[in-house]
Parts: sequence; structure tokens; C-alpha cells
Amino acid sequence: MAHIELNNDLPGIRGLMAFRPETERPLNLLAETLLRDDNNSLSRGERELIATYVSYLNDCFFCQNVHGALAGHYLKCNTDEIDEIKNNFNSVNISTKLKALLDIAASVQKGGKHVSGEQIAVAKNARASDVEIHDTVLIAAAFCMFNRYVDGLATWAPQDRQFYVNRAPQRAEEGYLASVFK
Amino acid sequence: MAHIELNNDLPGIRGLMAFRPETERPLNLLAETLLRDDNNSLSRGERELIATYVSYLNDCFFCQNVHGALAGHYLKCNTDEIDEIKNNFNSVNISTKLKALLDIAASVQKGGKHVSGEQIAVAKNARASDVEIHDTVLIAAAFCMFNRYVDGLATWAPQDRQFYVNRAPQRAEEGYLASVFK
Repeated sequence: MAHIELNNDLPGIRGLMAFRPETERPLNLLAETLLRDDNNSLSRGERELIATYVSYLNDCFFCQNVHGALAGHYLKCNTDEIDEIKNNFNSVNISTKLKALLDIAASVQKGGKHVSGEQIAVAKNARASDVEIHDTVLIAAAFCMFNRYVDGLATWAPQDRQFYVNRAPQRAEEGYLASVFK
Repeated sequence: MAHIELNNDLPGIRGLMAFRPETERPLNLLAETLLRDDNNSLSRGERELIATYVSYLNDCFFCQNVHGALAGHYLKCNTDEIDEIKNNFNSVNISTKLKALLDIAASVQKGGKHVSGEQIAVAKNARASDVEIHDTVLIAAAFCMFNRYVDGLATWAPQDRQFYVNRAPQRAEEGYLASVFK
């Protein structure tokens, strides 16, 4: 049961957003811009993967499953393959650039000052642009917020991971603004 | 020097926002709604204090000084008094409710799951409303994002703390949307 009376039975962040529509709008605008804006050289799948990985490091069940299912949808991976990336992204067949960006995201999760000049140099050597590095840091930072919001208020989450996989195609189609402008 | 080429010499988050205006807008909308919206039973000073305390716990020099100066402006405290609150809020003359909310914010800073039912009960006993608890958790979570964003990209910050105090009245007047709609 959530720490506060939400007056709805929506799971995870959706229950919080319905409770407090004033803050829903900027939060969803941020997610839409960071994770879905077409004017971005990182694919939607890559960006959802960074979000998933940080949510995994923060042990946020709801966020890592919502965004893991979306990453799987875009990248055409199943749940086991997404889990393999979360557990050890260096062992899987993804680009050197994406590995360097996931490494930066992991440092952001610990705290901003954990990001080292060496990590940035590795990413730049792998042809990550300044905007891609910027967006990686901000996606990772934003999920340190979303994860704390969801777990800090003790929201509930469906425990069947297939639930998230089943919903991913519709979520991918609707985007994050759907609930704002409904 | 920042980890990426920002093409401007603005300090802290302002340099990042000028570099990436697409994400500036939702971030500033979030700050405006959380910290300044008049339809809130927590005062602006109380909300800025929560932001300041989390930024202090995350050791983010820029954010703790920007928001500490704003908290001081609203609450009519000087820098030493704000520092005293950061160092040991239990020893200062603030309400039992604000102490309970700062205690929740400190747990959010560690991670969402650190917030305990007992902390929530203490806050409710001190007459904190569900919306106030919600906003405290989200302000604390949001500053775990802002702090990581500012330090994760290694932005520069003026080291003279009086700089922030001097600017606070104008910042308080303009709000966080000024740069969005300029």
C-alpha cells in the first residue's frame, strides 16, 4: 500500500501522476523529450535501455520493467536478453558507444561526481557526440528521480513481468504525453 | 571545465539549459511547479529548504548555494543559519512538521526504499498532509536528478557564496520560467 492515499488503483508512477496532475505534465514532457523525441541520434531503444539500466541499478521494479519492455520492443529483444544487458552489458553484442554510455549512466546513478574524465574520453573515442553524452547523463539523472519517486512513496507494481511486455507496443505507440493531453 | 563543449560560459545548470533548450523547458516547468506554485500549503521557503538540504547531502555546490540563498531570502535567514539547518536541522527552531519532511527527504536522497512507514507516520502525526508528503518526496527526488545533471557533466560554479545570496532576490522575483519564455 502506498505511503499516501492516492484515491486510485493505478500502478507505479501512474497512480502518483493521477494524484498530482500539476506535476504530471512536466514529468511526462521530460520523459517524452528525453526518450522519444525524433530529433536525436540515439535511438528510442538505446535511450530506453539507459533508463532501464539505471532503474535496475536503483532496484526499481516498476520502472525497470516498464522501460525494459519498451527497450525490448524497440530493439527486438526478449526479457532474457534485456536482463542479460542489465546484468553485464559488456558481455553482449551492443555497440562500443552504447557500452561507453551505459558505463557513464552507471556512474551518474552513484552520484554526479562519479563520472570521470576517462569515461567521457572513452565515449568520445567511440564517437559519442556531446549531445549524446549530455542526454545520457540527463536520462540517468532523471531515472534517479523517477525511481525515487515511485519507491519513495511505496507505490504498488504488477509482479508478473509479462504484463509490462504485453503493454509495451501500446505504450510505444501512445508515447508519454498521451495521459497529459487526454 | 565541463565534460562537453557547451559553447557558453553560464554556470551550473544554466550552461546545460542553454546548450540543450529542448530539455530546459520541462526541467524549468518542474522546478516552477514544485518550488513556486502558489497553490501549495508548504511555503516557497520550506520547499527551497528541502531542495537545499538534498543538494547538500548530494554535495552539489551550485544547487545547494542557489537554493540555499533562495531559502534564506524567503525565510529571512542568513547563510550561517541555512548552514546550521543543513548540518543539523533537529537543533534549529523550525516546525516539527518541517523536521519530519526533511527527515523523509534525507531518506529519498539515499534511495526510494529508505523511506519508512515510521517516518511517514511521524510526518502525519505532525499534521503533514498527503500532498505535502508527496511533494517532499518529489522535490527530494528531483534534486537527486538536478544535482547529478550539474555534477555529472562537471559544470563550473562561482565559488564566492555571496554571489548566490546577491542574486537570490532577482531569482525569487523572476521564477524558473523566466529563461524559458524569454
